[in-house]
Amino acid sequence: MARLNDTETFFSNMNQKVYFAGSIRGGRLDAGLYQRLITFMQRTDIVLTEHVGRPDLNLMEQGRDRDARIYSQDTAWLRECDVVVAECTCPSLGVGYELAYAEHLGKPVHVFYDRTKTQLSAMLTGNPYFHIHPYEKEEEIYNVLAELLNKY
Amino acid sequence: MARLNDTETFFSNMNQKVYFAGSIRGGRLDAGLYQRLITFMQRTDIVLTEHVGRPDLNLMEQGRDRDARIYSQDTAWLRECDVVVAECTCPSLGVGYELAYAEHLGKPVHVFYDRTKTQLSAMLTGNPYFHIHPYEKEEEIYNVLAELLNKY
Repeated sequence: MARLNDTETFFSNMNQKVYFAGSIRGGRLDAGLYQRLITFMQRTDIVLTEHVGRPDLNLMEQGRDRDARIYSQDTAWLRECDVVVAECTCPSLGVGYELAYAEHLGKPVHVFYDRTKTQLSAMLTGNPYFHIHPYEKEEEIYNVLAELLNKY
Repeated sequence: MARLNDTETFFSNMNQKVYFAGSIRGGRLDAGLYQRLITFMQRTDIVLTEHVGRPDLNLMEQGRDRDARIYSQDTAWLRECDVVVAECTCPSLGVGYELAYAEHLGKPVHVFYDRTKTQLSAMLTGNPYFHIHPYEKEEEIYNVLAELLNKY
């Protein structure tokens, strides 16, 4: 039976497609954190939604037609991804929607939030489907991310 | 063919079950507004989630077991309701989740938000499933509510 050596295992787990979810119109207080998480994941994997970390992102409604194109692209990426990683410290209607959408598709979903700054919704903490990762210091996130990205 | 007269039509449209969605742990800035909307709807209909307007609501995480009971109750109400009415001015992960859940169930969903205070997520405005009602003055909401509750 063929057995992967360590190097092959490492490379077989690279280039997973990650849907990163973070607040856009709900508030950009954590945009810098989103960017650092995305950069970290991009060292080994593909982040489909890398725009979520950009400081110059347009936060205005685009009208229903142009917003429909955003909706269509984001839900296509949700269908395409291997795993969803969400930073949920800043409340966001869009992220809440995306998490339910991902659950319906059966995608693995990992939710991070700073427990010193917010109380997470019972629709997330009370739902056994989600993997919930409260943290107190940003450094804690990277250890968990490195481990979980190796799984998918 | 039997034809309802006006009085019968009126009563046949009363006592619809409404799932009202508003921010809880995401922020309680609009709790007074939620309470006024709930009171208005309760004049003719049943609001399953009347606690969302209460000023003394516990906003803290309850631990995963107790939060699981909240999740279980809220999703049961979503399955039971005839229509979902959401006030979305204050961003909320829970409300975003509930809207996607309601969409998946095929429940009619009406989203209200103050367009002078927020930009709504493209996951809502870009999704043709949702009925979106931007408003500038609170009074506008009641006219729309009265009309839509008469439909279901």
